[in-house]
Amino acid sequence: MNARYLLPYTPEAIGGLPDALDVLVWDGDGPVPSDEALRGVEFFCLPYMRHPAAVAVIPHLPSLKVVQTLTAGMDDVLPYLPDGVVACNARGLHDASTAELAVTLILALLRGIPHFTRLQEQGRWSQEFHESLADKTVLILGYGSIGRALAARLEPFECEVVRVARRARSEEEVHGAQELAALLPSADVVVLLTPLTPESRHLVDAGFLSRMKDGALLVNVARGPVVDTEALLKELAAQRLRAALDVTDPEPLPAGHPLWHAPGVLITPHVGGPSSAFLPRAKRTLREQILRYENGEPLANGS
Amino acid sequence: MNARYLLPYTPEAIGGLPDALDVLVWDGDGPVPSDEALRGVEFFCLPYMRHPAAVAVIPHLPSLKVVQTLTAGMDDVLPYLPDGVVACNARGLHDASTAELAVTLILALLRGIPHFTRLQEQGRWSQEFHESLADKTVLILGYGSIGRALAARLEPFECEVVRVARRARSEEEVHGAQELAALLPSADVVVLLTPLTPESRHLVDAGFLSRMKDGALLVNVARGPVVDTEALLKELAAQRLRAALDVTDPEPLPAGHPLWHAPGVLITPHVGGPSSAFLPRAKRTLREQILRYENGEPLANGS
Repeated sequence: MNARYLLPYTPEAIGGLPDALDVLVWDGDGPVPSDEALRGVEFFCLPYMRHPAAVAVIPHLPSLKVVQTLTAGMDDVLPYLPDGVVACNARGLHDASTAELAVTLILALLRGIPHFTRLQEQGRWSQEFHESLADKTVLILGYGSIGRALAARLEPFECEVVRVARRARSEEEVHGAQELAALLPSADVVVLLTPLTPESRHLVDAGFLSRMKDGALLVNVARGPVVDTEALLKELAAQRLRAALDVTDPEPLPAGHPLWHAPGVLITPHVGGPSSAFLPRAKRTLREQILRYENGEPLANGS
Repeated sequence: MNARYLLPYTPEAIGGLPDALDVLVWDGDGPVPSDEALRGVEFFCLPYMRHPAAVAVIPHLPSLKVVQTLTAGMDDVLPYLPDGVVACNARGLHDASTAELAVTLILALLRGIPHFTRLQEQGRWSQEFHESLADKTVLILGYGSIGRALAARLEPFECEVVRVARRARSEEEVHGAQELAALLPSADVVVLLTPLTPESRHLVDAGFLSRMKDGALLVNVARGPVVDTEALLKELAAQRLRAALDVTDPEPLPAGHPLWHAPGVLITPHVGGPSSAFLPRAKRTLREQILRYENGEPLANGS
């Protein structure tokens, strides 16, 4: 046994790979292969949503050269990465699913879907005006690959999209972070897409929230700790802001946490990535990366 | 008193109208103006969502020439229209709001928003895979003005859009009604946008539903009676199909009706039109139409 690849899918499932590829399959659920079997593994693709069991395998891979994630964020992998190992994220893989969830959360909250779901449970028909995304201003904070996919999905809705990234980029009308404070008060919806870094932790604090306009909607599809939960809870309790959160801090959100029942909040359990869009795009990402590795080409999205 | 216009908004609120316009304002809520005051009214814009009080005014307008609705559908106005009176619908007015609600319903049901709303009420975090709109096939039945707005909104979601109208139109890849039976089995989502006519009543019957694929989603943002409710209830009870219904038959859906608690159904109370997108577009529609009438130009969307 001298497998070079430790992958969550069989080569047949991934498709389009060379016949003689030496692959050990571990999906993160079954028993971890023996140290002997893992000895030659150079390329390890972490099974999706199997943290921390997946990173616990890393110390058992003495030949490791590449760690490939199936997530866009690397915050929970980088601390476990040995020196000299290249870490590649799955930039692009989650664009469709996560951007789509962001639109879903915006539309669901504006158009009153949680409210109507509760009315339906009571068997009550109550026609009333709700908000539309049309004519609104949506600020995307953290304008990268997913942000671009989100902007493309928002544009036909007759809304205005404002893009903010760390650095301004004139070719795409992307504002720099230093313009954020001035842009926030005009946004009806603020979507967080920043990776979690020491700089972005609690980026959305009391001061940030205080600049958002009355009744504005905060959407977090990034990472929970980008938002200061205590500060957000104050704005929600005052019914000054609303929020749609796919990620929370703490996460998973424990039973009894005040965020569950704060007014004007919709919570989904970190489902930006896990959807039917995942598997075909994960296989495509992995196929392309393995072919690069086999051919000695530079890997995509490496550290 | 010799007002020529009976409108739900003041000329100042509508904006951009000639100064000397003779307008009587009636928003459908206050007392109906006297027959004497109504004697000269030629142009009557029905107040929105004030049926049947609004159409009850029609017999009191002896000089009536034009009835303007603020709805796309005319099914509940045409029976009250005197001979020789032109009826104009509000084609285009609801494109943004109704197309947006259709996307909202599709995304909410696929991505599990009603389910997560119920989990949230219980304070339960349960990360799980749901469906994505990406890679799905969406069939739009009744491809007109709203259908075009819906297709534009769906296209960036990496899904396939199939357009069906009464007659095929090659320039937009619109299929004719005679192709519907062959197209239905490949659609993951079917969105109804047909006007209610004698031909479209119960268009979606047991035979139509039986052609839809297992697990497919029926979205009705058209009119309730386009769907045979009894036939739909059978498919829902068998958990073979799912549905998102903004309109129902009967409507309003009475308390205790089995549709409220059928499995896999999301019900909103006819809110495709009533949203914050309505008022600015209603005023624009009315302004343009009044200017045409003042200038003796042909009216838009007349019968």
